[in-house]
Order: sequence, then structure tokens, then C-alpha cells
Amino acid sequence: MLPPASVIRLAGEQRELPYKAPYAGMIPSARKAAIMGDHWQQASQRQPGGQSPETPHGSRIDPYVGQYAERARGMVASEIRALFAVTARPEIVSLAGGSPYVTALPLDAVGEMFGQLVAGRGSAALQYCTAQGDAGLREKICEVMSLEGIRAHPDDVVVTVGSQQALDLITRIFIDPGDVVLAEAPSYVGALGAFAAYQADVVHVPMDDQGLIPEALGEAIAAAGAAGRRVKFLYTVPNFQNPAGVTLAAGRRHAILDICRAAGLLVIEDNPYGLLGFEGEPMRALRADDPQGVVYLGSFSKTFAPGLRVGWAAAPPAVRDKLVLAAESAVLCHSSFAQMAVREYLGTQGWREQIKDFRELYRRRRDAALEALSAQMPDGCEWTRPAGGFYVWLKLPDGINAKAMLPRAVSSRVAYVPGTGFYADGSGAGHIRLSYCFPEPERIREGIRRLASVIETEMELRDTFGTDAIPRGTGVDTPGPGDL
Amino acid sequence: MLPPASVIRLAGEQRELPYKAPYAGMIPSARKAAIMGDHWQQASQRQPGGQSPETPHGSRIDPYVGQYAERARGMVASEIRALFAVTARPEIVSLAGGSPYVTALPLDAVGEMFGQLVAGRGSAALQYCTAQGDAGLREKICEVMSLEGIRAHPDDVVVTVGSQQALDLITRIFIDPGDVVLAEAPSYVGALGAFAAYQADVVHVPMDDQGLIPEALGEAIAAAGAAGRRVKFLYTVPNFQNPAGVTLAAGRRHAILDICRAAGLLVIEDNPYGLLGFEGEPMRALRADDPQGVVYLGSFSKTFAPGLRVGWAAAPPAVRDKLVLAAESAVLCHSSFAQMAVREYLGTQGWREQIKDFRELYRRRRDAALEALSAQMPDGCEWTRPAGGFYVWLKLPDGINAKAMLPRAVSSRVAYVPGTGFYADGSGAGHIRLSYCFPEPERIREGIRRLASVIETEMELRDTFGTDAIPRGTGVDTPGPGDL
Repeated sequence: MLPPASVIRLAGEQRELPYKAPYAGMIPSARKAAIMGDHWQQASQRQPGGQSPETPHGSRIDPYVGQYAERARGMVASEIRALFAVTARPEIVSLAGGSPYVTALPLDAVGEMFGQLVAGRGSAALQYCTAQGDAGLREKICEVMSLEGIRAHPDDVVVTVGSQQALDLITRIFIDPGDVVLAEAPSYVGALGAFAAYQADVVHVPMDDQGLIPEALGEAIAAAGAAGRRVKFLYTVPNFQNPAGVTLAAGRRHAILDICRAAGLLVIEDNPYGLLGFEGEPMRALRADDPQGVVYLGSFSKTFAPGLRVGWAAAPPAVRDKLVLAAESAVLCHSSFAQMAVREYLGTQGWREQIKDFRELYRRRRDAALEALSAQMPDGCEWTRPAGGFYVWLKLPDGINAKAMLPRAVSSRVAYVPGTGFYADGSGAGHIRLSYCFPEPERIREGIRRLASVIETEMELRDTFGTDAIPRGTGVDTPGPGDL
Repeated sequence: MLPPASVIRLAGEQRELPYKAPYAGMIPSARKAAIMGDHWQQASQRQPGGQSPETPHGSRIDPYVGQYAERARGMVASEIRALFAVTARPEIVSLAGGSPYVTALPLDAVGEMFGQLVAGRGSAALQYCTAQGDAGLREKICEVMSLEGIRAHPDDVVVTVGSQQALDLITRIFIDPGDVVLAEAPSYVGALGAFAAYQADVVHVPMDDQGLIPEALGEAIAAAGAAGRRVKFLYTVPNFQNPAGVTLAAGRRHAILDICRAAGLLVIEDNPYGLLGFEGEPMRALRADDPQGVVYLGSFSKTFAPGLRVGWAAAPPAVRDKLVLAAESAVLCHSSFAQMAVREYLGTQGWREQIKDFRELYRRRRDAALEALSAQMPDGCEWTRPAGGFYVWLKLPDGINAKAMLPRAVSSRVAYVPGTGFYADGSGAGHIRLSYCFPEPERIREGIRRLASVIETEMELRDTFGTDAIPRGTGVDTPGPGDL
């Protein structure tokens, strides 16, 4: 059994970390607040007089507490955020983060290429560029998208600061407070964060092991219409979904497109993992069959390197125009250097072979994870079997709370992301996301061994004291970038 | 005299440029619309049935025209945007752009440093990092800010995608539609764009050659209060202001801070040029004397390289926390590579010496510009004499319209930014901004010679036909990043 002291010790150690979450245990999270409509209650909790004793040194009384925009009132860190920071310690096996294994890149060759780029073309690479992005890179991006059946023109593409910025800009141009976004249940935490930042209401649509369920999508659209709600778009990660690891079946893709077209609903197809499948050819993109109805989001973060922050959106012309203007207002333009570096990488470094290497590397790690899960997990656990990407979605035995268990798991030197981070409606406490992308296979096996032991201990607690003995966490999880 | 045909030819050539502005002459600009409250009129102009014959090929009917967020209805490019793109042609002397002269950097040494960074520490440099930014870089940033008297802790700093992203995030966390931002008249166009994107109302406060006028600031605050408006912050570029080239006098700085403190008003101190003064030591920053009342924005775009997009905000703790969360929602995190590259540059490459070299280079160009203006400009022109930075602000003779003149100037192979871009209220048509940062001194002299000739021709037109003969431009200018 794990004493509460271990949790307190972890919390105390936050002070040494680069980012300190000053709200630990103090304020409910952004999305919960948005749903519950308790913005003002939150604000009042932050009044000087209401300052919590937990507020650490350095976070002083906020003289601007009454000044923030309505949208900012929900911008608060969750109490588990700091816990994630400690998962970077070497003794902890982190199955939480979604960091790609960039060490597998040919770092010497990439470094030489970067050096030559500055020495030879530094006057352009170190200068401003246009908000739409480097034209040569946009050509290469069209080549990359053609692997998934997309025929695009470089004019259709806007380069973004990772695909997260594309999510931000799409939401910025489409969402008024209270508008509805349809999204899979569960959905990518970064997308939910962007939607929440513009005060969207996310309505989750069920998935099964074949991905989003067309009938459920139709019902959700009809229900929103009957309730007089304005639905602005469907957000979907069709391939090797984050966090569920499932892929939208080929046979469902046309049905999804037909339903959205009939409803006049734009589709946001977020596809960071599409080229990282372990079996056969890449799936045909939704955008390949409906370029006017789909905004496709891509990223080089998983196929090359997240540290350059190069993603993109391919959009219908009018949407593209708005995205360019929104990007300019947000950051003026992307980094010329990063864009030229990716263009150069795609032009000279055998990127197709590198993706094959990554696929093989992640396939081995997926296999290690699935084998260890089969061998170690107690009865009552269920999990998905991803055919690509980074994630396994695991259902805990009944009565086990993923969030309440997390501090004890970290004390047992294994970390994961509780399922609550992937829902806008507070559900998901019965699930966890396990990432197999970063640790070596032997570490994955060790981490799953530790996790199985933690779950078994929780089950003993449950059987002895009932589910009420497990303290329930508060707030929705918002892990940091390294955890996504 | 310049025939209208020359203008038409330029417009026709837009089609070859990477970014096409499909709205030329069709729709009033974002800020004008925001002020006039004619969002819906704009939207209706874009209905399929109302499509203008000027809409170029490739910009099809927009099926999402009724779907955009309220804030996006104003996101439209101005008709002069495409004109700026042609200023990149070698035959044109562009005094429009604000691009620093990065060719003066030691490109071989910087390239070697970049290469070693990836080869030696690529596993970190190509990976995700935290949303607040690289801790080592934030330490170095504090060292840079200490040159202006700021005593900051790395915890106070948030690294941003250029200081434009800091402007975006500050506006995002503080501005509800209709809130007032106080800003100098004129003000930086990128800041006005960020304020407009969140539907702020900008109230301009007059400057003179000593910068912002404290009495005028006090009056603006009082007037806004009397009108029941919510003023959220003062936005100011105190040093070598963009576009006016003036510097806030030392004797006024405490007065400005006192007025804002008494009004409970946050100050946004945007300082990209502070270290690029031509005379004496850097001015003491506003933040140096009121760290709780000032958010300081800095940038490496002018002292190192804009192509890495590394800027920062130093903010009071509670504001910093909101900025970190907003940054995460917007882009997850900044580029590890770019941050480590700047950190490495500051640690190894003699950045203080490089800034001295830049100062000397820009001083020579400023001198060339001022000498040529004195020698060439016709009576009736007046201009500022900047003691640093990139810009001269020139008042045209009465009755000459800067925007109407621009196509003729470009036909005469010289470009500038019309003053209208730097006001949220549609004024500024009697001014132009001239940048001396990028062209060689001889080119600056040639450009000013051409410009003087264009102005003289305008004056002849004015004297012959009266001011009505000069066609008035419509909309407010929103130049692209390369023009700022």
C-alpha cells in the first residue's frame, strides 16, 4: 500500500521544475468550468482575499483578476499537471508522453544539412517569410499528402506552428462562444484545449473498434439541430487515433463524408500518424474524396521532428484565405529556417526510408506493449490493438479510477495519462492512455509490469473498502506538451 | 504622368505571386469594418450571388460563408496587399519592409553552431519542450533585459513565436469584444492586427517628438471611463517607435507609469528595437521601474534573426501563468531547436559585438536616409529623426494621399507603407513610413530620389486638378510580414 505521504513529497518537488503549476488542488479545470458555467465562481476564488495557502512562493496576488477576458477565466492548469513533470525522471517509465523517438534520426546528417542551409542560404533562412509559408515546402507537402490519395496544389496549403496552431486557427475563424464542435469520444487533448480556449461546446460522438460510428454521427447532428445548436465542424483523427489507437474503417469513410456533406458540415481531418501504419499501405484520406468539404491537418512532428514545429493545413480556398490572415495576426509568419530545413530534409534525406524505419521501430514497441498487456494485466482490463501510431487505450476494471490511481502509479515508477483528459464532459475516469512510442521495448514491458501491479493493488482496495475508498480526483486533466 | 494602365498591369501580375489576395478592391478592411460595425454587410457582399467579377481564378464560391465566427468576419486582406508583394522585385527600392539586414551575421559560424547543436544534442533540440520555453534560454533573456535595467527571474519569462505571438496571447487573455486598448497614434500595424482579431476597440493617444504625451494619456483614460468603456491596457513601443521613429523621453516614463498605476491599467511595453540605439546607452525600460504593472515584450528578430521566430514576454506571475496556458493551447510549445539555437548564439557568438555592428550599420543607413530627405524632399514634407531603430515617419504635403500615391510610387520603382496602416481609425493618409533597415545606403538615396519625384508629380496634379483628382483608396492597409 502506498501512503499519501508519497504524493505530498511529489507535490513538494514541483518547486524545482521549470514550470510550476501554482493552482494545485485549488481550482477546477478549464473544461469542467466551461461545462459547468462556473467561470465567475472561479474568478472569485482567485480574489486576493480568497488566496489559498497552497499558493507557492512566487505566485503573488493577481491585481488583474477582474480584467481578464471571458475566454481566459477557464485557463487554469489542472492539479495533475505537476505530476506529469516528474515523469521525466529516469527511474519512472513514462507511458504518458507522446514524444516521438527522434534519436532514431540520422542526427549527424541532419546537423550537416542545417549548417549548410545557414552558411549557404542564411540570408533567406534567417529572414521573415510570408504568412502562408515557404512555397517550396508547400510543394513538398503536396507530395507527402499524395501518399494518402490527396491531389492538392501548393496554394491550398498553409504552413502552421505544428498542427496545434492549425487547430487553434481553425477554431479561431469558426467558433463563437457556445458553438458546437463534434468530436470522437475520446478525442485528442490538444484539440479539446483549443476548442475550450474559444469557448466551444464539444459534443462527443461514440467510436468503436472501426472508428467513428456513422449512425451516431447522424444522430448527434440531428440532436444538435433539434436543440437549435449551431454545429460548426466535425473534428476527427481517422488514423491510429489519439488516444484510442483505432482507425476509421475504409467502408465508413464515405458514409462519414456523405453525412457531413448533407448537413453542410465541414470536416477537420487531423492526421499526424497516417504514415505510421504497421500493416499495408496508408489509408486514403477523407480529403482525397472531398477537398471542398475537408480541412486536412498534417504534421512533420511524428515523421521527422517535433522540435521544428512544422505542421500544415490543406483547406478549401476561402478557408485557406482566412487561415493565412489568422496566422499572420497570430505569429506574423512561421520560421523560415524551420520550413527550409524541412523542405531540405524532404528533398535530400530519404524521408520515405526514414518513415519505414520509424514504422518498424514503433511496430516493435507496439508488439512489446500488447504482449506485456496480455501477459500482465489482471482480469477486467480491456485494451485496443492499434495498427499504427503511438497509443493503446486501456479500460480499467470496474470501480478503478484512473485519475485517483495516478499518484500511486507514479510512486510505483510508472506514468500514464488518465482518460479524463480526452473528454470535454468529465467522463473517461475508467480509461487510461498508454504510449509505447518513446521507451525501449524492455522499458515498456517493465512499465506495464509495474502498472499491472498498481491496478491489482487498486482492485484489492476496491474489494476491501468499496469504490468510495478511492479518492476521486477533481478537474479535467490537461497534460503539458511533453505528455501529449 | 503615370497612366492608370501601369496600375492595372501590376494588379494583373498578382497571379504569379505565392499569396493571392482574392478581395482586391472588393471588401473594406478588418479594422475599418470593426469600427464601422458593418460586419454583416461585409458577409452579405461575399454571398455567392454577390461575387465580384474581380474574384480571380482559384477563389471559388465559399460554402462556409455563413459559418465563420464573428471575429473572422473582419479577416480580409486589403487591396494594397498584393502591391507590396511586387516590391520584392530587384528593380524596386523597397523602403516599405522592416526586414533586418541578416546578411551581416556571421553565417558560417552560425551555421556551424546549428549543425553541432543537432549532431550533439539533437535528441533534445528536435523534441517537444515545455510551453513556457527552454529554461536556459530564459536565463539568457534575463541577461539581455538587464541591459535596460530590468531585474527579472527566468520564471517571469514566456518564450513566444516572435513578439507577435506575445501580442496575440496578451490580447487573447485580456480582450473581450468591445474592450478598449489605448495605443500611440500611430501604432505598430501587427499589434493593431492582433487587437482587431479579438475585436478590441483601439483608442489612439497622441505622441510628439518626445513620445506618448502623458497629459493626453490621462485624458484618454478619463474619457473612456466617463463613457463607461472598459480599458484593458496601454500598448506602447517606447523606443524608436514603429512607425514614427520617436522615443519616449526619460522624463515622461515615470509620469506614464504613475498614470497607469493610478488607473489600475496594465502597460504592454513592446521593445524590439531598444538595443538598436545610435546614441549612448539603452534607455531604462518601463518594466525596470514597475515589474508588477508592465508586461515587457522582447524579440531576437532585430538583434539576431527573425527567421527563428524567437520572442518573449516578461510578465507578472499571474499574467505569466495565463500566457503559458494560452501558448500551449495555441502552439503546444515553441521550437526546441530555435530556442536552443538562440541560447547557443547568446552563449558563444559575441552577441553584444554583433549588436554594436548592427547599430553602426543601421546608423549609416539612417544617416543616408536623413541626408537624402533633406536634399531631395519638396517643401511641405516633414519627417522624424530617429535616434535608433528602423523607421522614419514622413508627413506629406497637404492634399497628398499616401495610399492613392502608392501604385504610382511602385511604378516609379520605390515602395513605402502608407500611414493608414498604423491607425485603427482610418486616419494616417497624410503620412508614410520609410524603412532604412534593409537597402544599402546608395539604394536608400536612390529610393528617396524617386520618391521625391513622385511626390512632386502628385503636387503638380494637386495644383492642377485639386485634391479631388487624386482617387481615394478604400480600406485600411494590412501589409504582410515582409513589409512590417
